[in-house]
Amino acid sequence: MANRARIVAAARRAFDAAGPLVSLDAIAREAGVGPGTVHRHFPTKAALVDAVLGAAVADIVADAGAQRGSDEPVEALLSFLEELVVSGAAAHDLADRLGAGGDVGPAVAQPLAELKEELRALLERAQRAGGVRTDLDEGALAAVVAAGHAAYVHPTGGRLAARVVLDGLRVRPS
Amino acid sequence: MANRARIVAAARRAFDAAGPLVSLDAIAREAGVGPGTVHRHFPTKAALVDAVLGAAVADIVADAGAQRGSDEPVEALLSFLEELVVSGAAAHDLADRLGAGGDVGPAVAQPLAELKEELRALLERAQRAGGVRTDLDEGALAAVVAAGHAAYVHPTGGRLAARVVLDGLRVRPS
Repeated sequence: MANRARIVAAARRAFDAAGPLVSLDAIAREAGVGPGTVHRHFPTKAALVDAVLGAAVADIVADAGAQRGSDEPVEALLSFLEELVVSGAAAHDLADRLGAGGDVGPAVAQPLAELKEELRALLERAQRAGGVRTDLDEGALAAVVAAGHAAYVHPTGGRLAARVVLDGLRVRPS
Repeated sequence: MANRARIVAAARRAFDAAGPLVSLDAIAREAGVGPGTVHRHFPTKAALVDAVLGAAVADIVADAGAQRGSDEPVEALLSFLEELVVSGAAAHDLADRLGAGGDVGPAVAQPLAELKEELRALLERAQRAGGVRTDLDEGALAAVVAAGHAAYVHPTGGRLAARVVLDGLRVRPS
């Protein structure tokens, strides 16, 4: 693995284990490289955080791609959205606590664009299969996904509450 | 109408029309009473805001009571929750902008307790009718309702997005 990828992987593990305030030195140790090497690839901590978020989104994109061929497109879409909401909550939390806020660096923008594409493909398949509502525009759909996130992070919410919210996207029996 | 009720009704209209920063003098004029009368009934603006929120919740309770006898208990529950989420968003906004925050005064606590009772009754009827999931505890249900609120107030959300979220409470066809 190249040093850059090794550092990003180490940073993901370190953020998970020790929280977002873990030092760059500790990340360098975890990656088995010197601090100078980390600094050369990531001049600021913000750049490293961007790379970590980008890698997390890239993983989600890969998951979505794997769902494309599913012969249960409705389940594939809803399971994917559930994972998106859960892992999105983790990424959101990390970005928030590190002050990245709404700013998305170039290392995140590209996988995010790919994610949008994958999501559109999954949605269209599920709609063509007749199992998912077709009367929501992109904005309303984004609001429902955000609501799934809200249900997941709610003090008395969690994965089941998020799934219930997303299940609202199913076509109702007439 | 007694002065107290007249002032609360005038304050509701004034908050709706002119926003939460409307003066107590303007509310007194709208109510057709003197400023001293307003002050006697509501020594602080917070007390008046509480009374306004309490009146709004009492209206919702009355709506819920009217739904109890519906012969379509699932629709009754979901329509009621939709109104709750929409009017709750307005009340939340008012409370927030006025700094009432999470504090709930005695004028709100009583109608809120009644609302909880009405909600439980509507939920039980809808569940007995077989149309609404029974696998959510009170906390998960609260998270879904909060998510409906989140969908309603989302920048690209609204009433349809909120309704989709609440529709997730329906029992799925097997």
